Amino acid sequence: MIKPPIEVVETIAGASKILLATHIYPDGDALGSQLALADILKSLGKDVVIYSEEKVSHLYDFMPGCRNLATRLPSLAGFDCAIAVDCGDQARLGRESERLLSVHPFVMIDHHAGHKLFGDIHWVDSTRASTGEMIYDLAEVLKAEISYDAAYCLYAAIVSDTGSFKYSSTTADTFRVAGELVNKGVKPSEVAGKLFDNFTSNRLQLLQMVLDSLQMFNDDKVAVIGATREMFARTKTVQADTENFINYPRSLSSVRVAAFIKESRDGIISVSLRSKGSDCDVARIAGAFGGGGHCNASGFKLRESSVAEVQDKLLKELEQLVSGL
Amino acid sequence: MIKPPIEVVETIAGASKILLATHIYPDGDALGSQLALADILKSLGKDVVIYSEEKVSHLYDFMPGCRNLATRLPSLAGFDCAIAVDCGDQARLGRESERLLSVHPFVMIDHHAGHKLFGDIHWVDSTRASTGEMIYDLAEVLKAEISYDAAYCLYAAIVSDTGSFKYSSTTADTFRVAGELVNKGVKPSEVAGKLFDNFTSNRLQLLQMVLDSLQMFNDDKVAVIGATREMFARTKTVQADTENFINYPRSLSSVRVAAFIKESRDGIISVSLRSKGSDCDVARIAGAFGGGGHCNASGFKLRESSVAEVQDKLLKELEQLVSGL
Repeated sequence: MIKPPIEVVETIAGASKILLATHIYPDGDALGSQLALADILKSLGKDVVIYSEEKVSHLYDFMPGCRNLATRLPSLAGFDCAIAVDCGDQARLGRESERLLSVHPFVMIDHHAGHKLFGDIHWVDSTRASTGEMIYDLAEVLKAEISYDAAYCLYAAIVSDTGSFKYSSTTADTFRVAGELVNKGVKPSEVAGKLFDNFTSNRLQLLQMVLDSLQMFNDDKVAVIGATREMFARTKTVQADTENFINYPRSLSSVRVAAFIKESRDGIISVSLRSKGSDCDVARIAGAFGGGGHCNASGFKLRESSVAEVQDKLLKELEQLVSGL
Repeated sequence: MIKPPIEVVETIAGASKILLATHIYPDGDALGSQLALADILKSLGKDVVIYSEEKVSHLYDFMPGCRNLATRLPSLAGFDCAIAVDCGDQARLGRESERLLSVHPFVMIDHHAGHKLFGDIHWVDSTRASTGEMIYDLAEVLKAEISYDAAYCLYAAIVSDTGSFKYSSTTADTFRVAGELVNKGVKPSEVAGKLFDNFTSNRLQLLQMVLDSLQMFNDDKVAVIGATREMFARTKTVQADTENFINYPRSLSSVRVAAFIKESRDGIISVSLRSKGSDCDVARIAGAFGGGGHCNASGFKLRESSVAEVQDKLLKELEQLVSGL
């Protein structure tokens, strides 16, 4: 077990009413960690409110407890602690970030490499593959009984953020925690099924259109796919349906960096980046565009740009990145 | 650790010249287990010959030690033991099965549910997700030092046969062994990259054609894809390039059984089946056509049939299988 800092443990152990948040557009690790920690803290007799400004995406609504999420921030009276999980940046707490951060002590539990320290007390460990596995270790130290539901959420968190144990962030500790969660009754195939075998035929149609958009650059080291507003309209899908699509161009053997440029309804263009190898850091690229993430998985959003403009600017950065590889 | 039967351990420990085989058309678990066991036995000072009637597929030629495979069965003089790993059926030992089985004692190490006992001494455990994890436990009992190469092959074996820890066969023991192999230096992303991110652009073209062939039956519970001789010719690909394609129709949320019908050059039609859930046993279906496998992953081959004929017969069986689900 990797022990959390004593200050984090004591603060949480001593709190009685806790506000629990995560980053906006929560992915499996964010949501799974948040829901599991809520369950764990409740089992210790604490009063817990879980907050997320958006409704849970239909891709994650299988997670036990997700219906308890408050999409409106309640009155903050009486909270003696707030915790943000899996959130590397104050802006990613969403439009209520200022109000959230007015709760003290504010504890950060995160594994993002580019984590920008904010809040009061920090447990940030970028050697961990997921926040989910950190929450597991925290529960052990807190001597909490991990329920089946919490185990299920933590397993989903780990599988989400490691691409089912495929990403370079995966460590022996990831496997240790995964094995312990299976011992608590989690069925790997069930969770993987919910996370990965969730294609509707509309979504498969969208995938085929997106795969058709594939373009290769820089001696096939860079692959770019795109999803336009028209594709979403024609297939009656939403942006959340593109989850994991970037793994297809990434799976080409020659590819070192895959980029996925998505046009959303409100004039925002969002870009996801995936790379292979520790010598190919796409967090830095995303950072240059105001985004963030990990060495091999990052993203950013731009407003008031065209897809062509974004692609041109991005390709210039990516060309530099892969030129020496 | 799950201990192998004492007779298996003593037989192997006492042997000095060992012939090591696996099933024809070896997959990652077959090949990884065979290569790793060869390395382990050599480290114990044994003389080992590894045999496979075919050259290693280009999808697996990254595995350390695969160039040592003999594609011709040598003189059998002097062998005091033979071991077949991951082979559930005598016929799957290939055209030299009779000669192979003339070596005694013949030890079977396998995890196939439908294993048909043959040979002299057996360690068959269908609760294990892969033969690779059994070989790991055997090495521990034999007090062998597991080299980096052997660890790499065993990790590849496990990842192959569990679809990167997604299949229902995955257990806490699978994670235990995976974690121990990572502790020996294996990098999960490196192995996963070799196994899954191995698409050439020709192979991606083949994938697009195969996805275009998708047909759905029985209220979308059955999905069928196909690869024709013409598709292979047009994309300059071979049957081995279709590895993992069946996971695409399997990933549709409504699908309980996915079938992949491949036409090969020599007039043989081979069918792969994948299913979800312990109540959806495709090993039984494959068995009815003379094939075999596991509950959620099986296959069979037919000669002198047309694709249409095979599909008709298969759909009748599958209709029965999913009718109550």
